[in-house]
Order: sequence, then structure tokens, then C-alpha cells
Amino acid sequence: MFELGVVYRNIVRTDRHIADAFGPLGSATVHEAMGRVGLLAPYMRPIQRGAQVSGSAVTVLLHPGDNWMMHVVAEQIQPGDIVVAAITAECTDGYFGDLLATSFQARGARALVIDAGVRDIKTLNEMAFPVWSKAVSSKGCIKETLGSVNIPVVCAGMLIHPGDVIVADDDGIVCVPRARASETLKAALAREANEGEKREKLASGVLGLDMYSMREPLAKKGLKYID
Amino acid sequence: MFELGVVYRNIVRTDRHIADAFGPLGSATVHEAMGRVGLLAPYMRPIQRGAQVSGSAVTVLLHPGDNWMMHVVAEQIQPGDIVVAAITAECTDGYFGDLLATSFQARGARALVIDAGVRDIKTLNEMAFPVWSKAVSSKGCIKETLGSVNIPVVCAGMLIHPGDVIVADDDGIVCVPRARASETLKAALAREANEGEKREKLASGVLGLDMYSMREPLAKKGLKYID
Amino acid sequence: MFELGVVYRNIVRTDRHIADAFGPLGSATVHEAMGRVGLLAPYMRPIQRGAQVSGSAVTVLLHPGDNWMMHVVAEQIQPGDIVVAAITAECTDGYFGDLLATSFQARGARALVIDAGVRDIKTLNEMAFPVWSKAVSSKGCIKETLGSVNIPVVCAGMLIHPGDVIVADDDGIVCVPRARASETLKAALAREANEGEKREKLASGVLGLDMYSMREPLAKKGLKYID
Amino acid sequence: MFELGVVYRNIVRTDRHIADAFGPLGSATVHEAMGRVGLLAPYMRPIQRGAQVSGSAVTVLLHPGDNWMMHVVAEQIQPGDIVVAAITAECTDGYFGDLLATSFQARGARALVIDAGVRDIKTLNEMAFPVWSKAVSSKGCIKETLGSVNIPVVCAGMLIHPGDVIVADDDGIVCVPRARASETLKAALAREANEGEKREKLASGVLGLDMYSMREPLAKKGLKYID
Amino acid sequence: MFELGVVYRNIVRTDRHIADAFGPLGSATVHEAMGRVGLLAPYMRPIQRGAQVSGSAVTVLLHPGDNWMMHVVAEQIQPGDIVVAAITAECTDGYFGDLLATSFQARGARALVIDAGVRDIKTLNEMAFPVWSKAVSSKGCIKETLGSVNIPVVCAGMLIHPGDVIVADDDGIVCVPRARASETLKAALAREANEGEKREKLASGVLGLDMYSMREPLAKKGLKYID
Amino acid sequence: MFELGVVYRNIVRTDRHIADAFGPLGSATVHEAMGRVGLLAPYMRPIQRGAQVSGSAVTVLLHPGDNWMMHVVAEQIQPGDIVVAAITAECTDGYFGDLLATSFQARGARALVIDAGVRDIKTLNEMAFPVWSKAVSSKGCIKETLGSVNIPVVCAGMLIHPGDVIVADDDGIVCVPRARASETLKAALAREANEGEKREKLASGVLGLDMYSMREPLAKKGLKYID
Repeated sequence: MFELGVVYRNIVRTDRHIADAFGPLGSATVHEAMGRVGLLAPYMRPIQRGAQVSGSAVTVLLHPGDNWMMHVVAEQIQPGDIVVAAITAECTDGYFGDLLATSFQARGARALVIDAGVRDIKTLNEMAFPVWSKAVSSKGCIKETLGSVNIPVVCAGMLIHPGDVIVADDDGIVCVPRARASETLKAALAREANEGEKREKLASGVLGLDMYSMREPLAKKGLKYID
Repeated sequence: MFELGVVYRNIVRTDRHIADAFGPLGSATVHEAMGRVGLLAPYMRPIQRGAQVSGSAVTVLLHPGDNWMMHVVAEQIQPGDIVVAAITAECTDGYFGDLLATSFQARGARALVIDAGVRDIKTLNEMAFPVWSKAVSSKGCIKETLGSVNIPVVCAGMLIHPGDVIVADDDGIVCVPRARASETLKAALAREANEGEKREKLASGVLGLDMYSMREPLAKKGLKYID
Repeated sequence: MFELGVVYRNIVRTDRHIADAFGPLGSATVHEAMGRVGLLAPYMRPIQRGAQVSGSAVTVLLHPGDNWMMHVVAEQIQPGDIVVAAITAECTDGYFGDLLATSFQARGARALVIDAGVRDIKTLNEMAFPVWSKAVSSKGCIKETLGSVNIPVVCAGMLIHPGDVIVADDDGIVCVPRARASETLKAALAREANEGEKREKLASGVLGLDMYSMREPLAKKGLKYID
Repeated sequence: MFELGVVYRNIVRTDRHIADAFGPLGSATVHEAMGRVGLLAPYMRPIQRGAQVSGSAVTVLLHPGDNWMMHVVAEQIQPGDIVVAAITAECTDGYFGDLLATSFQARGARALVIDAGVRDIKTLNEMAFPVWSKAVSSKGCIKETLGSVNIPVVCAGMLIHPGDVIVADDDGIVCVPRARASETLKAALAREANEGEKREKLASGVLGLDMYSMREPLAKKGLKYID
Repeated sequence: MFELGVVYRNIVRTDRHIADAFGPLGSATVHEAMGRVGLLAPYMRPIQRGAQVSGSAVTVLLHPGDNWMMHVVAEQIQPGDIVVAAITAECTDGYFGDLLATSFQARGARALVIDAGVRDIKTLNEMAFPVWSKAVSSKGCIKETLGSVNIPVVCAGMLIHPGDVIVADDDGIVCVPRARASETLKAALAREANEGEKREKLASGVLGLDMYSMREPLAKKGLKYID
Repeated sequence: MFELGVVYRNIVRTDRHIADAFGPLGSATVHEAMGRVGLLAPYMRPIQRGAQVSGSAVTVLLHPGDNWMMHVVAEQIQPGDIVVAAITAECTDGYFGDLLATSFQARGARALVIDAGVRDIKTLNEMAFPVWSKAVSSKGCIKETLGSVNIPVVCAGMLIHPGDVIVADDDGIVCVPRARASETLKAALAREANEGEKREKLASGVLGLDMYSMREPLAKKGLKYID
């Protein structure tokens, strides 16, 4: 969060096969698999309901009201990347619209996660370029001050390093550190595996109380039933 | 709000025919019919736009970040019930997802109203299980501490007793106390009755100023027209 | 914001052809063309996603929890107008529902912008009457106190005079003062003109860095690339 | 929260000796003694730093922007009471100033807890009449609509019955239900008893890790020390 | 709110004797005397508790994060003025600290009202230069973009013209338009006149119910007492 | 933010002489000297007005509602340290009171910075142990789950490594990375050096416009004066 005016060109991304495999699992399952850490603040909301993606983070740090570095980060995008944009102070301005989305999409970016506002959201929907943001605002930005690209950033309260995996869907956004991506993917796949069976049981009327053997621990804690 | 570790099994619900009759009237009409009380705070928002339901409240009190009692309340659901979940302190965690929804739906629950977060909202939409919540969050919960089921709770600023009628739609959520359900239903139906005629008049260009005879009281209060 | 109990009947609207021409340009383009002023606070959100309108402002000032003046302003609406409703203090009550919408639509109103809550939003959607508001709430209003119609008001932080142009879409709401409408329209059309070409270039992979000749000014500011 | 236009004159207060004994213990100790329930939302803040009181609740329910019932509740105050004021919807208006404070003080009220705004706070300080509120605002109120006195109310998210004990200080406000006052007082006194000894130990450099024998349970949970 | 890059040097201030006479009356009394309009949003809070001032407004419009115009407005200050600073978008940065306060004080400014942040608040206290602000922040500002001086501005939701009277104290801030200053002062003095007598009566135990003859209108509205 | 259940015992602190030298300079001056980065969010407020400190950060990551690790971090404190506490999700509970303060003070801690709530604030004031927090709350914490000590944390939106310098006063909190502490101290001292002279000039009536030679650049940007 401190180094300004620097662009790191050669970041180590998470292996593409691993990064891509998180998408279908979704943010809730991955968050559980991480040990319940890594979640960005829930004020971050999808512009397009139903979008679900994963990819390696390319990070950018910007100043309030200034989106100059969005053009700088565009050049550093590789296919499958997700751009993560952090701001040095609270801001809801519209940093990103249809032109930047066109450029990001042309570079192969999979999505944008930004702790600020975006605009042209009707066109973003038509382009099917997924965005998670804190706000929507017509207010555009100036191009005056330097931030940085591919330094560690704090976005929506979470520390994100370039190359970490970002998993985003309707429920929220999770960051999986690159070093833990492989083990987390395994844990998440394991969680996913027996969900179908559980759902079937619950649909047939079996209670979670019984399926998870909760009655005894609840009684031990002192739960009383009163008729 | 004070009794912890207790499950009341035999609550008196509002008569099913009465509870069900509120749904088509909607929260705004019912709120007016109540004398403009009973509304939950407007930060509660529907996960599914367009859902409109009513039913008897089954209540559950939970602790921040702990959804254990959601499994306990599931067993107390009867067909047509709406589960009302209150938390002992502010929390946006995801207390409820597709598995619990499957269980609630299997028990006949009509909807969930929760003063916290939910997750798996894409699946909730596909399942058509209506939810009103304060937040959406991937963050799951632990299962450590006892709350209570079917005690009076404060949800989104409103006191709700088990067996009260809950009316929820795109506009918000209203609680009708069981003892006042019958009279409120009559008042709400009466309000509804002449809405069609009013709408027709207004559509034809008649002004509310004339239809409601407001010109004289406005003049009495001193309203001045300046050309 | 100070004169209460007054209705100005003869306001000077922006020329209809000019006011109508802003709609297709959208709030972001118009905001830029204004020199980046005139935007209402971004907490104002559309009830109907996708609506995009412009028109002359007819203003109304109301008190918290009291929507009496909404009936008074209805009479002052002319086809193509957008009603702008301000409140003397913070309020989220539902000032506007299907009946008032029917009346406004019958008078030719194009939209409502209100710094408070609305209700009956399912019906508003069916009627296709566009609304931008701060909140949704079932809570209705009383009819007790006088406000004013067609005085200058502060709505969502922006000063709006009757007859100013309002431009609203998914991105937000901009107010263009009547005296600046013509010059702003020209500037906005000019901005719009070369957007298509830019988009094409960016889609082909040309970077904004090159298209806008940013590399040199960035280097001058001291941007460093590190491999 | 539902009965409007009613004043209950004969409420059962908590025994005065018990109610008064909570004050010196403070809200944090009492909250713990209650099993960590009963706390009003932490947005409630003292107008006078350093005030610390307890007493039986006399409740009043008011409408947004209308303080008429404050005069009605004044008559129901007995020496040692704390007035608890709830509003039917969110409001920051100044419901209470120096004149009402003079009247409350003359009746023997010990404090006011209000889920809205107050004003004349300089004079309130000079009068040494303690107030806990959500806001400070010069905005006065009208006197038009009926609320109720001494019905159960929801204040800052907590259900409060007339006669319950209110404990308030710089840390916040706790409600102790009348039926649990005696047992809670005992538990709170017990907690208080050994605080002095603990403080002395900690001041001498003994760690909580050792004083509370936490090292073993922490190790069991897997805590690792890395040099 | 629209004209940028302009400094109006010759504004018409409210007569100094009138402007100064509002101070001792306080914001609550003046707000009532205005007919309960003119109040700035209650999120504005005094940096120094106990300060109470009035004076003619000198206005300045600034951009987020840019305090250049604070130096421009300094030159326009005359003894007894209160500087009112508005920002074109939400911002909490520290626009004002000890150096600017020294300059303002040297020019005879009586206070600052700013819809943003300030810093050096320890020194501001030592200097006894009163400030009302939305936030406190160490974050300084750049000096890059032009705003305006002495144009009408919207500050904390209220429209303020240069030369209007500002009244500020612990309870909040009220704007009295210049044209209404004389009549408002009279009305406020009249309100103040009989406060002492009322306070004495209430202190002696007379109830507001009787002093204001409220019992009959309350009964007419249907208030019921239950023993 | 990801490693749970770990305590790093041997962190490299900033040189004590350097860390201590920041205190008298204050957060605003240091923030400017850093190039206007490093500031924690302005919602962090001092419990004791007037406190001004600096020191090396000892960090602790906790879970919502669980303050177990506060006892673990106590053991890692060395004289002159400032404890920085981050929470894995938003929480206002009271993590810290008089007993922990006694222990921290006995270990030589200089202050606590916590992105959550504290309690016993009356005693904290009497003890003169400075605290900066997001909230005040009577609500205590459980001791159930492991966090970590002396890992990098995100506190109030800022990334803080153990050993970084924390500078806190009435204006806010700044983090100076250990590697930049020496150079930042020099820059801050340089800024401070000529403040006295500036203040004297401004106090004598010299305008910032002239002292900083702003008239020409303002004119170049197009500022117009209108009489």
C-alpha cells in the first residue's frame, strides 16, 4: 500500500488450470475451504447477477477520483486474469466504463473487482464483462496522479497479492493466496463432493439435526424443549 | 430477547386461512390497515424480486456468526410457516444457503426473513425459496452456542411473537400480531376494494386534489398559488 | 429551501427539443460535458434497471413522512416533465406508489426522482413508470403539512431549479441548469461522436496508453516499470 | 410496538433497592452477568461523558418528528425512573431539550434513553441530567399524533418492558428484565468481587495467559509459537 | 453549484448587528423561529464543544481532496464572517488545519463550517477557532483544481447563499437567508422571552400537559389511560 | 490475513529512537511526509482526546466476538510497543477493557489501535492508557478460536506489518513501514521546521495566496474575480 509509481511486469500467477478450477465451486465453498478467511467485505456487489468467475489477480492501486492507472494496468493483463483495483481512500466515483471494459476484454481479462464505483453499467451488461464494485456512479475520473500496478493492495478490507486467485459470484468475493491455491482447491472439491447427497437427504425430509448428529451436542449444551 | 437455550414446541399460530389471505394484499396495504405500525426496517431487502408471501411466524434467535439454531428451528416448521431469524447483535454473515433452504422447503416453510446475511443466492433463486435479508455474504457460520426457538424476537427493529402473521413483498415486511390478524385482514380488504376505481379515475386524468377533496384543506392551511 | 406553502404555476422549462435530446446520451456523458458537476449523490438508485430518460424538472419540497404535496405537484406536470422531490430532512418512507404513478403518468410525467422511499414497486415496473429513489419502503405518509412546488430544491445533495434538465439512467442522475442546457447538449454530442471509433480501436487491442498518448506524461511523472 | 393511544398508569417497577444497586456495577459487568444479552445497539452514546446510572424503565413510544407523548410520559415518572423512548421509524430529530429536562428532573427522573436525537445539550450538561441518544439535532418536533406510554417497546434493537432495569454508562446501555433483576444483581456483584485482585496481579506483570490458565487450551487448539 | 473558477468579491452581507444577535439565541431557537427549515444535516458536529456563534456566510466550493480555494476564500473574509465550505462530492479529507486557521483568524473569521474533514484539531482547540465539520482526518489535500468563492452552495444538504446568516452551536447549524434575517431574529427573540418563566414553572413540578393545555386535545385524539 | 494459529515471537522492530521521534510530529505531518499514504480510515477515533503517541507495531488478528488472542499478544509486548488489533470481519464488540489495559500497561505497551470496540472507557481514561477504536461497546467477547500474533494485518483499511511505526493523535493514525521509517522521519522533521515561521506570517495578516505565490497559477488555471 506504500510504493507509488511502480509497475511490476513479471508477476508469478497461480497455475492457470488451478486458478480456473475455482470458478464453478463458488465463493462460499472456497471461503469454507480456506478455513473461513479471505473474504472481501460484503458491501462489494456484482453488477451482473449470475456471473461466476475465477482467475489470477492483477492488482492496481489508484487515488480517489483518478483512474489514470487503469490504462496502465490494462497492458499488464493476460488472458484469464482478474483485475483487482484498490483506492488509497474511500471513493465512489465511476473509475471504469464501457471503453475500459472493451480494452480489458480485448486483453483477455475475465472480470474486474473494484473498491469504488463504475459506470456505463447497461453496456457492461450487454458486453457480459463481469464487475464487482462498491458503487455505481456517473462521476468520471481525472488522470493526474501515479498509483502502482502489481503491488500488494488492500481491497474491500482484504490483502491481495498479484497472482493470488480471486473467486467471485453472487455471494461475494474470496482471495486465495497463490501458495495455498492447490491445497484449497482440493479442500473445496472435497466439500463439494458430498453436497449432492446431503441435499437429497434434506429434500426427503431428513433433518440436519439428525444428518449432522446435532441432538446430543445440543442437549449437552443445555438446550431444553418445552411443550 | 432474553431466554437462551429454549425451544417452544407448541405455539399458537394464526388461523391458516387468515394468515394466507394477507399475501395478495401486500405489505403496503397491510401496513396502512394496521394504522401504520408493524413495519420492519427498510434495510431488509428481497433476494428474489417479485416474491409476495404471508404466513405464521416461527421465530429463532441466533448469535453473531453462529447458525446452529437454524437446524433446530427447521424441526419446528409446519407447512405455511415463515421463519423469522433475529441475531443478538449486528451481523452480516451468511446464515442460510442452499442446504438449509432445501430442508426448510421440505418442511413446508414458505419463506425466510433474517436480520443478517444469506448465501447461495443463485441456487435460492433456482429453488424459488423466497428470502428477505439484510445482506448477502459468502461467510459461513459456526455451530457453537445456543439461541432459542419460538420466543419473542426483535427482527429489523420490530418485535415479533411466534404465531404472528408476516407479510412480505418487494416493498418490505410487515408483522401483524396474531390477536389483531382478523380485524387487520378486514381493514386491508376494505382498503383494497376501492383501489381499482380510484386508479381508473386517476388514469382518466382526474387529479387526487379533486378526487380526495384536498383543495379546501390545502387552502385553509394557507397554500398560495403564484402565476 | 425556505419558502413553504407556495406553488409556482408558470415556470420556464428548458426547450422541449433540447431537454429530450439528452436522454440517449446518458448521465455519464452529460456529467463529463458539464465539466464534471451536477451529479446527484450515488445513493440514488433506479427502481427499474435499464430506464433512461431526460426532461424538464418540476420540483416539490415535502416534509418527512408527509406526501400531501405530491398531489399538488401532480397538477403542475406537463408532458415530458420529470418530477424532482426533495424532503426537508432525511426520510425513507414510501411517498409514492401505484395510484400517484397512475396520476403522474396520466399528466404526461416521464419519471420521478425522489430523495426518499417509494412503494408498490412491482406495479411501478408493470406500469413502466421510471423512478429513481433513495429507498423502498411500505411505510405510507400522512397529509398534514404544506411544502412547496416549483421552488429551487436540494435533492440528493444537488441544487435543482424548476425547468432545469434532468438526465437519469442506470449510472445515476445529472442536473443541467436551463441556462446551460444548449451548450451542454452540444458538448455532450461532441463527446459521443468519437466514442464509436475509440471503442473499435480498443476492441482491436490498441491500448489506451497509446491511443491517448499517455506513455510520455506517465514517464514524466516518474512511473517506473520493473521486470 | 402495536398498541397506540394508551397510557398504562400502574406498572410494576423493579424493587428500588435492587434497581439502584446496578448503577455502580456498570453496563459491561451487568451485560456479562446477564449471559451477554440485553445490550442496546452501540450507536447509542452518552451526551455527558462519565454519567453512570440505573433505574426502572418508564417507556414511551413516539412517531417520527412528533414528541407530544414526551409530555404524557412526564406525568408517569416516579423518583428513580429512567425514561426509555422508542420511535416507530428511524429519526434523528431533537425530541428533548432543556424544558422537558427541567420537567423530567422535577418529577425525579434519573435519566433519558432515546433512540432519536436531543438538543440543548449545553444546558443538559449544566443541569447534569444524563441522556443517552442516537443523535444530536436542533430540529424540533410537532405535537400531532398519539403514541403510547408504558407498553413494551423496541429501543435501539432491544425489547424493553416498563419496570425493567436500565443500566447505562460510558460503555453503553443494558436492559435487565424485572423478573431477572435479583439473580442478575447477585451474579454481577460476584463478578465484581474478584476484579480488584485480578487487576493487582495483572499490574504486577502476571499474564492473563497464566492467571486464566489459557496456555493449555490454546495449545490444544493448535496455537504454534515461531521464533 | 455549477459555476466553477469564479470569485465574487462584493457580496451583500446581512447587517452586522442583526447577524451577531443570533448567536446567543442558539440553533434550536432560531430553527423553530424559521418555521423549522434551514437546518444543516445533523452529521455536522462541532470540533469544540461549547462554542456558539453567528455571522454572515462567505461561501467556497471545493473539489474532493483539493483545498486550493481555501486560500482564495481567505482573502474575501471580513471580520465577523463565517466561512461555509461545500465539496462537489462526498469527501472526509482534512481540508483545514492550524495554518489556515491562523490565516482565517487573522482576517477576522469567526468560524468555519465544512462538509468534509479537518485536522490539527488539538491546535484548533488551543486557538479557540470554532469549527463544525463532518469528519476529522489527517489526510491533507492537493492544490490543483479551481472551485468558486461566494456562489450559492449546498452544504450538508442545505442551500446557502453568501451573506446569509449562519447560527451554530452544540446542537447543530442553521442557515437564515439574508432577506429573512430581520423577521427571524424578532421571532426568535420572542420565543426566547418566555422560556425563563416556563422553565421555572416546570421546575416547580407543573406538568407540560397542564402548562400547554394538552389534556383536552390528547383526549380528543383518543388517548386512553388504563389503571 | 491468512495464517491462523501462529505467534511470531521474534519480530524486527523499528529502532526505538526513530519510532519514538515520530510522536511529537503528529499524524498529519507524518502522513504528508509519507507522500500522503499510510493513513488508517478516519472512522478510527481516540478514546482519550489529546493523546499523541508513536511506537513499533505488535499485531494481532482476531475473530468477530472473540478476544482470546488479546491475552496471547500481551506476552509479546515490549516497552514502547503499540498493539494493532485487526478483526477478520466487521465487529463492534468490546474486545478490551480495564483488566487487559492493566496487563498491557504492565508490559510497557504505549497504546492500542483496534478496528472494533472497547469498553471500561472511564477507567481507561483514569489509567491514561491511550486507545484508538472504531466503537465503544459493553459487549464482551468469548475465548474460543485462534487468530494470530505478529503477522501482517489489515486494520481500518491499511496493511500493517509487525515492527512498522504507528503514529496516532486526535487527527488519526498513520502507519510508517519499518524500511521507510528513517527517511520519513527526516522528511517530517523538515516539514515541521518551517511551520513556525509560516504561522507567524499568516498571523500577521499575510495571505497564503501571497506566501505560497498562488496568484499566478490560479490565474493561469482561469480563476476570475468579479466585483
